Amino acid sequence: MTLTVIPMLGIGEVNKGEDVASVLFPSLQEAGATEGDVLVVTHKIVSKAEGAVREIVGDPEAFKRALVEEQAVSIVRRRGDLIIAETKHGFVCANAGIDRSNTAGETVVLLPEDPDRSAHRIRLKLTQMLDMDLPVIISDTFGRPWRRGLTDVAIGVSGLTAVLDLRGTSDWSGKELDVTEIAVADELAAAADLVMGKADGIPAALIRGYGGPRGDGRGTDLVRPVDEDLFR
Amino acid sequence: MTLTVIPMLGIGEVNKGEDVASVLFPSLQEAGATEGDVLVVTHKIVSKAEGAVREIVGDPEAFKRALVEEQAVSIVRRRGDLIIAETKHGFVCANAGIDRSNTAGETVVLLPEDPDRSAHRIRLKLTQMLDMDLPVIISDTFGRPWRRGLTDVAIGVSGLTAVLDLRGTSDWSGKELDVTEIAVADELAAAADLVMGKADGIPAALIRGYGGPRGDGRGTDLVRPVDEDLFR
Repeated sequence: MTLTVIPMLGIGEVNKGEDVASVLFPSLQEAGATEGDVLVVTHKIVSKAEGAVREIVGDPEAFKRALVEEQAVSIVRRRGDLIIAETKHGFVCANAGIDRSNTAGETVVLLPEDPDRSAHRIRLKLTQMLDMDLPVIISDTFGRPWRRGLTDVAIGVSGLTAVLDLRGTSDWSGKELDVTEIAVADELAAAADLVMGKADGIPAALIRGYGGPRGDGRGTDLVRPVDEDLFR
Repeated sequence: MTLTVIPMLGIGEVNKGEDVASVLFPSLQEAGATEGDVLVVTHKIVSKAEGAVREIVGDPEAFKRALVEEQAVSIVRRRGDLIIAETKHGFVCANAGIDRSNTAGETVVLLPEDPDRSAHRIRLKLTQMLDMDLPVIISDTFGRPWRRGLTDVAIGVSGLTAVLDLRGTSDWSGKELDVTEIAVADELAAAADLVMGKADGIPAALIRGYGGPRGDGRGTDLVRPVDEDLFR
C-alpha cells in the first residue's frame, strides 16, 4: 500500500498554555485527515505548550551545562561540550534532550514531562474534534553511535504499536526467530521528518496508508532495557 | 511538499548474475517513475544478484560464527551469540551484516562488496532505461544501542546527498551552529521500509516528492569517523 506523508502547514508559534490539538486541528481538516491516518508531532511545540521551557540565566554555556546535569539521570559519555545522557524517561541522547528554541529570545526547550501522556492527551482531544481515532507520535531528533547525522525518532506514542514483533518468521538457518522487532514508530517519525525539515517551521505531519497495527504502544517501548543493552 | 512512498510489487526471487535494474524496471514503469523520484532497494536482492551469498557448510551456528569473524574487521561487542561488528565498509551492525536468506535452502546473504558502487551501477542502468536520472539508495536493517527494534538505514547511495548539512542555522543560544547534520538517506530508507514489510517480499520502494538535494552522497558518508565516535 502506498504511504503518503503530508506536512501540516500554517502552524505558527505555540505558547505555554495553548492546546496542541486545537492548534493542529485546522491543518488536519485542510489535509482531509481520515480514519487510518497517523499524526506525527515534533516535541518542540508540545514542550512549549506544556511550559517545558527555561529562560537562560547568566552565561548560556554554564546554564546549559547545569540544566543538562539537572535533566539527566545518568551521563553515558562526555567529550568536551558534548554530553550523552540518559533522561528520566530512559532516552539516551545528546544534552539530555535539551534543545535550542526556535523562537527568538534566550530560552531552551526541555522534553515533555511524559511524552506518552502528552501523545495520549492530543489523541483523545483530536478523536473528539475529528470524530475518529487518530494515533499520535511525538518525535524528537536524536544522534546515534557509529552513524553520522541525526534522525527523528518517537519519544511518545498513543494508539499505535511502537515496536512491531515479527516472531514467527524463519531465521537464516530455517529456525523460527525468537527476536525480530521493527521500530515502526521510529520509522514513522523519520518519514515525517522528511517533509518537516529543520528550518521550515513545519511541526507536524500526517501519514496516510500505514498498515501497521493500532496497538497500545508507548514511546517507552522503544527504550532498550538496560540489561539488554551492550552500550551503557 | 507531500511525500509518497510506493512499494515495488511483483518482483520475484533474484538470482546470481541477474541485473537488478532490469528486475526492477517493469515495477518502476508500472509506478510511473518520474523525474525527482528516489529508489530504495533492500540490499538482499543486490547481494543475491552479485553472488554475495554463501552455502552453509556443516553446523549452521559454527558456520555463522566463522563467517562473522571473516566478514568483520573488528568486533565492537559480544554477548552470547550476539556479535556487534564493524564491516570493511565501516558499518557497525549485528553479525557484520550477515543475514538469513529469504530463500529456502541453506544459504546466508552477505553485504554487497561495495554498496555505493552497486547503487551507482543500478542508477546508471536505470537512467538509461527510464531516460531520466533516478537516485538510488541501497538499504539494510540495523539495530541501535539504547533503542529497541530495528530500522532500515542506507548502506549505499548514488545521486543524492546522504547527510544534509544545516550549518548556518542558529543554535539554542543564538550562535551559528557548526554541526547540524540530518541523515536524510537513513530517513528515506526508514520511510521505504514502512511499505516493504519484512515478510511481504517487497524488496524496493519508490519515493516521490522528496525535496532534498541531489548531491554526490555515498553510503559511507553515513559512517561516523572513528575519532568522532564515542562508542567504539
